Amino acid sequence: MKAVVTVTLKSGVLDPQGKAIQSALGSLGFDGVGSIRQGKIFEIDIAETDPARAASELKDMAEKLLANMVIENYRVELVQGMDE
Amino acid sequence: MKAVVTVTLKSGVLDPQGKAIQSALGSLGFDGVGSIRQGKIFEIDIAETDPARAASELKDMAEKLLANMVIENYRVELVQGMDE
Repeated sequence: MKAVVTVTLKSGVLDPQGKAIQSALGSLGFDGVGSIRQGKIFEIDIAETDPARAASELKDMAEKLLANMVIENYRVELVQGMDE
Repeated sequence: MKAVVTVTLKSGVLDPQGKAIQSALGSLGFDGVGSIRQGKIFEIDIAETDPARAASELKDMAEKLLANMVIENYRVELVQGMDE
């Protein structure tokens, strides 16, 4: 089963990388970019086929390794037949 | 208008970071993790309100700055009323 775990900074946490991208976009001529926040995604292929158990395993992975729960949020999406 | 640009490695491009995460998950006791690929997401707030023009501007941003088109794919999603 394929899944996608998305990890984003909590709101209120500074994102200097996002700020840098925002200013780079400005200097490339893209006006009207209000804010940019960068996050991470993990495309994970797991052997577990039961959706509920897979979701709970992925939640564990996110909390133990993928996300820093102090400053980041995560969400887990199960994807069937994802192409890439 | 809020949008999310997702940038992922093209299939066939090596992902050493993904491999490292995979082996770290293994040593944490998560068996059955087939493969992991890491990508990036950008949550962007742009002033443009017309969905077609916004999508085309975001496509430009992705091709000029956010993604390295040699090794990465991107996809653009427009999100109305996204919460974070």
